[in-house]
Amino acid sequence: MANSQRFKFTDLVAGLPSAVPFVGPETLERQRGKPFVARLGANENVFGPSPRAIRAMERAAHNVWKYGDPENHDLKEALAAHHAIPAESIVVGEGIDALLGHLARLFVAVGNPVLTSLGAYPTFNYHVTGFGGDLHTVLYKDDHEDIDALLSQAIILKPKLIYFANPDNPMGTIHPAAFVQKAIDAVPDGCLLVLDEAYVEFAPAGTAPVLDVTDRRVIRMRTFSKAYGMAGARIGYAIGHPELIGAFNRIRNHFGVNRIAQAGALAALADQDFLRDTVSNVAKARVRINTIAQANGLRCVPSATNFVALDCGKDGDYAMAVSEQLARQNLFVRMPFVAPQNRCIRLSAGLPEDLDLVAAALPRALEL
Amino acid sequence: MANSQRFKFTDLVAGLPSAVPFVGPETLERQRGKPFVARLGANENVFGPSPRAIRAMERAAHNVWKYGDPENHDLKEALAAHHAIPAESIVVGEGIDALLGHLARLFVAVGNPVLTSLGAYPTFNYHVTGFGGDLHTVLYKDDHEDIDALLSQAIILKPKLIYFANPDNPMGTIHPAAFVQKAIDAVPDGCLLVLDEAYVEFAPAGTAPVLDVTDRRVIRMRTFSKAYGMAGARIGYAIGHPELIGAFNRIRNHFGVNRIAQAGALAALADQDFLRDTVSNVAKARVRINTIAQANGLRCVPSATNFVALDCGKDGDYAMAVSEQLARQNLFVRMPFVAPQNRCIRLSAGLPEDLDLVAAALPRALEL
Repeated sequence: MANSQRFKFTDLVAGLPSAVPFVGPETLERQRGKPFVARLGANENVFGPSPRAIRAMERAAHNVWKYGDPENHDLKEALAAHHAIPAESIVVGEGIDALLGHLARLFVAVGNPVLTSLGAYPTFNYHVTGFGGDLHTVLYKDDHEDIDALLSQAIILKPKLIYFANPDNPMGTIHPAAFVQKAIDAVPDGCLLVLDEAYVEFAPAGTAPVLDVTDRRVIRMRTFSKAYGMAGARIGYAIGHPELIGAFNRIRNHFGVNRIAQAGALAALADQDFLRDTVSNVAKARVRINTIAQANGLRCVPSATNFVALDCGKDGDYAMAVSEQLARQNLFVRMPFVAPQNRCIRLSAGLPEDLDLVAAALPRALEL
Repeated sequence: MANSQRFKFTDLVAGLPSAVPFVGPETLERQRGKPFVARLGANENVFGPSPRAIRAMERAAHNVWKYGDPENHDLKEALAAHHAIPAESIVVGEGIDALLGHLARLFVAVGNPVLTSLGAYPTFNYHVTGFGGDLHTVLYKDDHEDIDALLSQAIILKPKLIYFANPDNPMGTIHPAAFVQKAIDAVPDGCLLVLDEAYVEFAPAGTAPVLDVTDRRVIRMRTFSKAYGMAGARIGYAIGHPELIGAFNRIRNHFGVNRIAQAGALAALADQDFLRDTVSNVAKARVRINTIAQANGLRCVPSATNFVALDCGKDGDYAMAVSEQLARQNLFVRMPFVAPQNRCIRLSAGLPEDLDLVAAALPRALEL
């Protein structure tokens, strides 16, 4: 009997690739046989969580024998107050990644069209493909996601979901709220705009459209992984019409959110002063990365996030070589996946000491 | 336009109920308007994790700005050494619940038959139904899952998955390893036996069949939620043939496991002395629950887990009334869902002080 025939996976699963969205830095370290000295490639927030959040997580570790509250009640109430929206318009999940997976499952059947930008967040694509969706893309325009192109294509394609990140990852660029609101208003009937705002706390005021949970055309994705510095805790949330949010309860893993993460997120949300300090520290780090780029005759794509796309000035092969040279000097960075954005390397807004290492390493990396 | 038509969920999702597998104790507390004084209903391990695991989690909270290793490499290597199996036969996930969800997604297409026991773990059923599976059941026999009946039915039904928990939840009963191994050997071609061993560390030696990761007929589910006392951390694992385990990589949320949970699990696994103490403490608590039952003229179903089904001696309505009377005395317990198992209430192996409260409350609860 053929080994490969013994496991009767669904037809859908049998046709899925084994490719993963991202290779983690630990995997690279194991392949290299040595650690990185600066971890600037995974869009993590090196400034970490509020000390109050850390203390809350330390305390919660002692009670981890209890399951977390499957309703995430206290956190949802706090988020509702913070955003001035009803709690029933919020669903908390194991990071935006998990929520994107649920969203794909809610809407995408085999063969359904879904629309995104070529080179945008690959984990969204992973989930859509994983549920058999037919992924369509439009191109970036001047390092921005091109929402006019998305909407034009959406009118033709009638996709179940339209993915749009504001700020964008991997480029860090933004569209102003008024423009995004116009786009929401233009979402065709039967389509849902997935507005991924993972980085929005770093962006200038006027980037996020007003939250309107009566609007059935859009769902907003937020997270504690980025500005709140808790990527490893795996806790994020989605905001939308209560009927849409309620549908997550039909499929989500109800007891899935880590109890320590719940406690940490609640404390992190309460410490908005720390968040403001983080945003300020990140802004300083972005300026520093720009200065380092300029000192090397290069420029950065203007960023509204905690990472910066540094334009290496040539093509993707060259940027890849620069990124490999940086890895040889023990710096972990990543780069956009597709041209022409892949002329850049992408660096997290590091600690001053991280960026000292970048300043020292970059000139050598560019000597190719 | 009808509101209900605006969200174009998949046909499958549109037909799913909103029911959740379990209502959490926090939800009940909010409904009651006051806390429980003993939390003995959720099959949690009140003895908690090893102090070394708690310290590891406290330390990890400081590094939670980093994503966890998506390969769960260090934990898989430690588990591989612990179980003397290859690391590629292990997949780590966000608790057995998440792994059961992935397993349903891997194997169950709309209309595919799946087999379990009536009254067995409802979260398995939730995931199977969630992917459109056609759930079939056999009855328990003398408070045990009836694996002969499962296998007879499997030959007729050719289910994609056969769920079997050993030890069983909610009754706490076991079948010996030799019997389970015979059942594995009898799994029909094209079926996969899901052997849920969440509670196996509490069971006597000779309960778990030898781990054989060349066997394509079975996948084993294990967790840090129960004997290791880390339910709120959401970390479990599955053991099986590397080809089957590899398939999880096509659909799992690669960065989904909490970094603090990874650190805690690694430390917990290393502290087998603490695990032995826990198992001993749980065994003492089971004896105590039996003593309390006898003092009230009742008996318990013999348990190999950290919970005990206490036979209230009448029908499900009576056991429900007893359980409500205990709740009125601020004790949280649950009960099996279906007859005749629902003549019992199910109590976790509590701390001595928890069981003092049970001893005091039960006589009053039985005065109906």
